[in-house]
Parts: sequence; structure tokens; C-alpha cells
Amino acid sequence: MRAAVIHAPKDIRIEEVPDPDLVEATDAIVRVTHACICGSDLWAYQGVASRRPGQRIGHEFLGVVEAAGTGVRTLKVGQAVVAPFVWSDGTCEFCQAGLQTSCVHGGFWGQVGADGGQGEAVRVPFADGTLVPLPAGLSDHDLVKVLALSDVMSTGHHAALSARVAPGSTVAVVGDGAVGLCGVLAARRLGAERIIALGRHQVRTAIAREFGATDVVAERGADAVAAVQELTGGWGAHAVIEAVGTEESMRTAIRVARPGGYVGYVGVPHGGSGGVDINTMFDNNVGLCGGVAPARAYIPELLADVLAGRLDPSPVFDVGVDLAGVPGGYAAMSDRTALKVLVRP
Amino acid sequence: MRAAVIHAPKDIRIEEVPDPDLVEATDAIVRVTHACICGSDLWAYQGVASRRPGQRIGHEFLGVVEAAGTGVRTLKVGQAVVAPFVWSDGTCEFCQAGLQTSCVHGGFWGQVGADGGQGEAVRVPFADGTLVPLPAGLSDHDLVKVLALSDVMSTGHHAALSARVAPGSTVAVVGDGAVGLCGVLAARRLGAERIIALGRHQVRTAIAREFGATDVVAERGADAVAAVQELTGGWGAHAVIEAVGTEESMRTAIRVARPGGYVGYVGVPHGGSGGVDINTMFDNNVGLCGGVAPARAYIPELLADVLAGRLDPSPVFDVGVDLAGVPGGYAAMSDRTALKVLVRP
Repeated sequence: MRAAVIHAPKDIRIEEVPDPDLVEATDAIVRVTHACICGSDLWAYQGVASRRPGQRIGHEFLGVVEAAGTGVRTLKVGQAVVAPFVWSDGTCEFCQAGLQTSCVHGGFWGQVGADGGQGEAVRVPFADGTLVPLPAGLSDHDLVKVLALSDVMSTGHHAALSARVAPGSTVAVVGDGAVGLCGVLAARRLGAERIIALGRHQVRTAIAREFGATDVVAERGADAVAAVQELTGGWGAHAVIEAVGTEESMRTAIRVARPGGYVGYVGVPHGGSGGVDINTMFDNNVGLCGGVAPARAYIPELLADVLAGRLDPSPVFDVGVDLAGVPGGYAAMSDRTALKVLVRP
Repeated sequence: MRAAVIHAPKDIRIEEVPDPDLVEATDAIVRVTHACICGSDLWAYQGVASRRPGQRIGHEFLGVVEAAGTGVRTLKVGQAVVAPFVWSDGTCEFCQAGLQTSCVHGGFWGQVGADGGQGEAVRVPFADGTLVPLPAGLSDHDLVKVLALSDVMSTGHHAALSARVAPGSTVAVVGDGAVGLCGVLAARRLGAERIIALGRHQVRTAIAREFGATDVVAERGADAVAAVQELTGGWGAHAVIEAVGTEESMRTAIRVARPGGYVGYVGVPHGGSGGVDINTMFDNNVGLCGGVAPARAYIPELLADVLAGRLDPSPVFDVGVDLAGVPGGYAAMSDRTALKVLVRP
């Protein structure tokens, strides 16, 4: 089969790789119909996160079950499924607690020895625990909406939950990438009254407004903090979503939080802890919660909303490619000429 | 009157200072019968936190209302009262939300221009909002228990709440100072099933066991992390109380938390954010919550338990002095020959 392979920073190629086989009885093989490129893939593309040359890449996909091991009980060949961005056994105490990202048998697509999502097919360990079945006959447009649940929308939802967004909340969202935009959407879904999106790219802030942002702040750093305080009577936001992962974004997020508020952070931290202003947090009792999103726990609830027509994160996909277009898709996202690239292998 | 004054690091003197007067109609004057020295006072004593020469010091006290302004509605002369370690108006939105430490008109005893708790009397702003009335006729022993609510016990309780201690929790407590010990007591009160106290001073860990610790870990750093993991089946504690405030204690606290767990931190941060291991937090979805404890919100509930004989934090006081003994009390706590010094002015 063909799949995306990362050889070095900025060197992603589409190559012929071995077809996946069932190895364990609990495996399934999924033929990928829809995949995409994540902002966190860019850390590898840009060389900030290291990869072994030849590793697969991509961790967001949905498709159809092509084969299932003898131990797979809930899925049949031909079943449409969406995968969260990690696999999980579905039975350990962390899976039972809804924290499948800490599954004792879990792993990430594209880790050494595993298939990535940007390819024609994927061997899925613990298929019963990992995959979420979809109704038959969904339109392509609905499948694109559902694809967003594999990571970006679930991650935005995790940020909003971690920030304790509640009906009536004032929310600030740091970051206008696809995760930040989905954070806006998640905050609106949870009943936020006011949503302040921090971002300066007009195409993106237009989507933020479409997703429910009531205010846009284009400033950065101290100016952004001042602008949010101005908009909130001097006190900041009850809930802050940090969707970038740099020192500056974390510092800004903590400083725009209201005393007693929470920062929900989901940007993979790449700045160390220098931006975690612990003195401001201490003085103001600002909590810092979040991390890698247990998408598997959220997909059923979010899927119900997508299928009911109440939730549509698909506007975050602004460019579509086939597998051959994946390397160009990385370049476009890295140059910020694309927001999020959809891949139809 | 006489009061403790800090002139420089390690230079605390008992001096004649002006008697406090009613300034605002909402003020009261409290004659101090019981006060104490806090671990956080030591940051000033040791020169880590700066003070203007001549500032008062001490922020934990109880006593009797000696005079009340015309605007004071809930307190009468002769009323016994306990003060939380900050004053607060009781009416602003943060006070109403139970976060009196962020009161828009609040302040700290001993700040420039204000009386400190280690003295014969204190002018109390916003007496109705700040002071909590006590029943008449409490014994000296009961008053000592109540004194602990002014800060140390309320702070331990805040740490336990911030760490989401719940019935059945496994809790780890980093720090065997008086706050850490009160954290143990608070965790037991909230129903923790297992409480692992990290500390190496046997007098203190003996109090920890008396307060409900089921295990004691004397190791530090990576060895402490390994020991806690060994005690918890490899996964760490659901709830971790960080009651020190150094880089090392924060690092240890985050690493002994179970995935999905919380660190409740109340040690005044003096190590910057270097110990906030954001990558471990992210990977494991460990939340970091806490800060300066809104003692005013907690005193009524904790007081009810003290008066009912269900809560006794008084064993944290191991040395008693009069005002003249205060400088020696600082030296003893700084040398760790005293755990917490009680002051009867």
C-alpha cells in the first residue's frame, strides 16, 4: 500500500510500504477513506519534535473495516468507523475512567512500528476498544465533519472542559489554529455567553466568528492581556483555552484568566514551563488543566451532535488533497497558507 | 502598644508602635489573645521575600473586639473573633464567590501601613466581611485549635480541595511542615482512604500519622517518586498536596500524581516555574490547582468541626511564647527546631 513516511524535517514522501496484516486476534484493518494533517504533525515536519527516519505519520483517520481478528466482537467487515488519535484497550482502569490516552496498552498512530493515519490502510490494535462505529451511508460531507472528531474537535472540547466552560461563561481562546477554532465551537456548545478569540489571521478569525466568537483580539502578549481585560471589566475570562503550546501563548493564557478561573491547555508544550507564570496562578487561584485529549471518550457524544446537525467543525478543513498531495499539504500548513488539510487517500 | 516589626532579614524586634484607631466606619479594633508564626513569614525572615524595613509582620490571630466603627453591623465590643489571613469586604463578586483572597478591597495583615497579627492589637478593615465570630467562653485549648483556622488549617483544606481529594482517594502530601500536616488532616476529613506523607523529620511524620497518614516516605526527589509509585501499584496518587513551594517539591508533586489526577499547591512559589513539569502534566492530564487559600470561605465549616470535637489541628503548635519570645520563635522555626510557634501577646 502507499503511505506518508517522514525521513527528516521537511522531507515527507509517499512510498510503497507493506500492507498491514492482522497480528493479534483483537486487531482490525481499516481502509482509510478520510485522513488529515494535524498542527502537531508540523512539530515533526519542522524538526521541533524528533522522528526516526522512515517513521509513518498522521494520526487522524476514518474508513471502513476491511478485516477483523477472531477476537473482535463489536465490528464487522464493511463497517464504517472513526479512530481517535491513540489506540486503547477499552478495558483498563484508565480506559474505564475515560482517560484512554493513558491506557496501559495504548499507543499513537505513527509511532515506531505502527501505521500512520496518512496512508491507504491502518492496522488497528484493540479494535473494539479503539474504533467508534458509524452509521452506514453517511454523505462525504458528514464524514468530513466526523473526521474532525478523531482529534481536532475532541481536543477543542477537552480544552473547554478542562477550562471549566459552563453556561454563561466568558471564555478567551488563545490561538487561531484549527484546535483553537474548535475550542471556540466547543465553548459555544457548552453554553459560553461570551467568547473572545485571540488571533490575527482574518480568514481564521472569520471562522472563529462563524463558530461563535463574540469578540476578536488581534493583539499579542501584554497588549492582548490588556485588550481582554478591557473587554471583561478588568478581571479577565472565567475560562481560557490555550491551543498553541508555546511559552508566550501559555503566559498570555494565564494572564487573561480571571481570579478563580481555569486555563485548559491542549497545545503540545514546546516551550518548557517558562510561560507557566506560577506566581500569577498562585495569587489569583488560576487552575491549569488539560493535556492530551481522550478523544475516544468524547467521540460518541460529539458524534451524536454531528449526526443531529447540531455540530459542524468541517470549516476548519480549507484544502483537500489526495495521498500524493500530502507533502504539499504539510508545506502549506507550515507556511500558514492552509489551515487544515483534508486527505482522501 | 507592642508589636513585632521586621527591620531586615533575621532582624525582627518587638517595639512600641502606635495604638490602632478606628479609621473607617467599617473598621474594628481587635485585642489579640492568640497569634502564631507562619512558614510563609520565614520567607521574609530569611530574606527570600523582601519587606520594607519597619513593616509589621504576622497574619494569623484571634482575639476580642475592643472597638467597632459605626458601620459595623454583625460584631459587638467584647465579641471573640478569629481573623483569616487577609481582610475582605465580604460583598464584592469575588467575596460572594468564596474567593475572598481576590477581594477588590482586600489586603494582607502586615502589608505596608497595616497592623500585623503578631502584636497586641490590630485595626481590622471591613470587620463584618473579614472576622468570624466565635462562641463565648471557649477554653484556651479550643482557641488554639481555632487559631489554626486563620491560615494553616484552612490552607491545608484548600490544598486538599484543589487536589480534588474525595472519599476513597489515595493522597500524597509533599512537605512535612505545618501546612503539609494540616493537608493530611484535611485529606482524612474529606474521606481519603490512603494518605502518603513525604517527609523525613520523625517528630513531624509522627504527627502526620496521628493526623491520618497511612504511609510515610522519607526519600526525596526521584527516590520519593519511585517510593510513591511502588506504594500505589505503579500509578501514583489521585490527589497530591504540594505544601512547600520550591522547584523540587513541585517537580516531585507532579511526578507522583496518577494520570488524570490533580496537584493542589499552596506552598508560596519561591522557585519560579522550573519545577512545573508541563510535559509530564500534559502527557498524564495532571491538573495543577490551588494558590492562596480563601480561609474566610472555609472557617465557618471548619470551625463547626472544631467545636464539635471532630477536628483538632492544634498538635502543629509545638512551642509557645509571649511577644518578647517572637524573635526567638522565628529563629527556632528557621532552624527547624520548632514546627509552629504559638504567640500569646
